[in-house]
Amino acid sequence: MVKLFISGFGTVGQGLAEVLKIRRDFFQERYGEQPVVVGVIDSKTYAVNPDGLDTDAIIARKMGTRTVGDGKYTDSVEVMDSVDYDILIEVSPTDIKTGGTGLKNITHALECGKDVITVNKGPLALKFQDLTELAKKNGCKLRFEGSVGGAMPIINLCHENLIGEHIRSIRGIFNGTCNYILSKMDKGQTFEQALKEAQQLGYAETDPTNDVEGYDAATKVVILANSVFHRNVTFSDVKITGITGITPDAIAQAAAHDMVIRLIGEISDNRLEVAPRLIPVGHPLSITGTLNIAQIDADLAGPITINGRGAGRIETASAILSDLVAIMDARY
Amino acid sequence: MVKLFISGFGTVGQGLAEVLKIRRDFFQERYGEQPVVVGVIDSKTYAVNPDGLDTDAIIARKMGTRTVGDGKYTDSVEVMDSVDYDILIEVSPTDIKTGGTGLKNITHALECGKDVITVNKGPLALKFQDLTELAKKNGCKLRFEGSVGGAMPIINLCHENLIGEHIRSIRGIFNGTCNYILSKMDKGQTFEQALKEAQQLGYAETDPTNDVEGYDAATKVVILANSVFHRNVTFSDVKITGITGITPDAIAQAAAHDMVIRLIGEISDNRLEVAPRLIPVGHPLSITGTLNIAQIDADLAGPITINGRGAGRIETASAILSDLVAIMDARY
Repeated sequence: MVKLFISGFGTVGQGLAEVLKIRRDFFQERYGEQPVVVGVIDSKTYAVNPDGLDTDAIIARKMGTRTVGDGKYTDSVEVMDSVDYDILIEVSPTDIKTGGTGLKNITHALECGKDVITVNKGPLALKFQDLTELAKKNGCKLRFEGSVGGAMPIINLCHENLIGEHIRSIRGIFNGTCNYILSKMDKGQTFEQALKEAQQLGYAETDPTNDVEGYDAATKVVILANSVFHRNVTFSDVKITGITGITPDAIAQAAAHDMVIRLIGEISDNRLEVAPRLIPVGHPLSITGTLNIAQIDADLAGPITINGRGAGRIETASAILSDLVAIMDARY
Repeated sequence: MVKLFISGFGTVGQGLAEVLKIRRDFFQERYGEQPVVVGVIDSKTYAVNPDGLDTDAIIARKMGTRTVGDGKYTDSVEVMDSVDYDILIEVSPTDIKTGGTGLKNITHALECGKDVITVNKGPLALKFQDLTELAKKNGCKLRFEGSVGGAMPIINLCHENLIGEHIRSIRGIFNGTCNYILSKMDKGQTFEQALKEAQQLGYAETDPTNDVEGYDAATKVVILANSVFHRNVTFSDVKITGITGITPDAIAQAAAHDMVIRLIGEISDNRLEVAPRLIPVGHPLSITGTLNIAQIDADLAGPITINGRGAGRIETASAILSDLVAIMDARY
């Protein structure tokens, strides 16, 4: 029986709990049993049960009281240590400045010899090398498909399917919010109008800085650079320009030349950058809406392009599911 | 030491031999040694050496004399039985009517407990169920990434990265030759002009029936239906319409509505079909040139689209490489 500890129980954590239910038959057929959730923490409260928690009840409770259990904690790792688990699923809110609780939890789990699945970008962008070395040293798996591109399978595609390739570059759209705004600006909205609409639809946060200044896309560039290109770079190594300076005039001028403006993240031998770029209409990177897309240039396979939903409750949980199945396959 | 037997030494077989050379350092670093080719057969001749063959010399010989060795054979499986190998790489010319030598070789290798990598569509389209059951019974791996979409990673993407998904449908362009012809017709050429150009460039064969009548795309639809959708269908279950009836007038009428015509293969619960379809300009499936593309509709991840080179010496060999690494990883 595989025991999961879920750290963070917002959109993605709850989505994962749902996905585990939706896929009961799949797990039963593949492993003859279900993975069980033995611990859940949010930012202040926790619930643990070595025999498995009722995650439906926890979702209901979270919706009502904003707590996941009666337990209150000051130190997350003490809660983690209080129950026997096999895999930490770290989906707490990301902190791209310090790595925050996520970094602490992932580090602790790996030190304890646990496998880790995370979509938490901060720890990966800041301490990729340390975390992968720690995982290796302790014989643990550290998987993070959902950290870049949500449900778009890019990390494991590069690590597994394209393992024999020399990947020369990746260019892509790694922030759906910016792409939504730019797509709306193509249709004549101003930046402010498009941003407001994105906020109303829940695509952009009240403070949109992280998205519109290109910081979120930059964390993904860092994760790809470290994991796919085996660099040792951090956030500050990325040259970042956001989309706040894009005017309707610039959009119109681009359109006059059959081009659109897209916020492109790029990793290649001599470039580590997030910046608005002119993209010809009809080019794969001219994609509209909240999709994410990546163009991978592989030396043998040639160009490979993939796109998918960059965010969403169930979509991001589906990326965690793919990592979970990979880890469970190795255990059964 | 992993010993390979290569059956078929045309474009793809030679491409694979080259790729094995190009990736010497990769194999050395990952496994501490190289896979060796202990046997090569073409349609009439063979070369075997338990200590490994000089594939450069065989390529040179093949270019000159159209033979791979001094040995002549009447029964391919006798040659296979004459040398100890671990993995059969079956890349002989495909026979979509009977499965031909490819089917015989794959079956024999699996019966002997060998792993098999193939890009040979005929055997997979005709006997998928039998072959996978035989592989399972004998504890062998049967991998075939390159059989659909060349270097576009679709099979292993669905089997591995998306293993936890329920895939509802796949729609895609699975024949680069037809797409090249239709792209040229978009630019004003007639079918005959475009076909002639495709033949001159080596995209289409002298007898283009297999491509332009949609048969080749249909074999890929069958392979996807059986392998990803767990159906038990064969070539004759696919409703097939090719592109020979597409007139410049039809193309012009489509263009007047901002549409293009593309040959789309589709697998869903109630459809197994290859047919020309109207696709809006700007839609991912409106892709031009020889690329292959697939739109996967997964119930949790949502829509995922991937494209890549559907053919080519090194590109197809790169798909074989990805299967080879997966098999070698499990052995080391």
